[in-house]
Amino acid sequence: MKVIYKVWLDNNGKAFGEGPYELLKRVEQTQSLHQAANQMGMAYSKAWTILRITEQRLGFSLLNRKVGGRSGGGSQITARAKNLMKHYEGFRKDVEKAMRKSYRRHFGYLEEGVSI
Amino acid sequence: MKVIYKVWLDNNGKAFGEGPYELLKRVEQTQSLHQAANQMGMAYSKAWTILRITEQRLGFSLLNRKVGGRSGGGSQITARAKNLMKHYEGFRKDVEKAMRKSYRRHFGYLEEGVSI
Repeated sequence: MKVIYKVWLDNNGKAFGEGPYELLKRVEQTQSLHQAANQMGMAYSKAWTILRITEQRLGFSLLNRKVGGRSGGGSQITARAKNLMKHYEGFRKDVEKAMRKSYRRHFGYLEEGVSI
Repeated sequence: MKVIYKVWLDNNGKAFGEGPYELLKRVEQTQSLHQAANQMGMAYSKAWTILRITEQRLGFSLLNRKVGGRSGGGSQITARAKNLMKHYEGFRKDVEKAMRKSYRRHFGYLEEGVSI
């Protein structure tokens, strides 16, 4: 037995969660939305749409898009995106810890081992 | 902005969560799976299947079914079901509290109000 959970920020629709976080993390690493989408096996257009909707629901920009140039452009995450990701990481860690604790406390009697 | 979460017990598939809990709660109140299903706008056969699968994944019985009799039968929840529900209620309460706390801590900066 284990506990499974899904958690996300909502603002009249899904505003931020695991998907956009993963995408931004990869943009940060690769400086390219194309490469980030590719790594996640996702069409560029889908990745672009996800981030556009996420920006709308959050109310601030996540990407600075560089057009053209020697390397053919690229994307960088904004300072606000970076800040959001940092907070999201802390939130996720807290929630994970609380889940484990609550599960052990209330459902530990169901079994010997506990996994999440 | 708010946080939304879904949480359930899993044992090679969804084992227990909000749906089965609601159903059992209504069986406890009405002593009838027919009435419980009806209150939830669910076909009796669907309610029956949900509880059967839940029993399989949990590994113990949830309902004692009375057949026939003056009132035409009925259902009562087992002592183990009652115990599980009690633990689930405690778990849900703990998780709700932890979510609020973590959300406020990490995302309070996004807005004035906090709602879950």
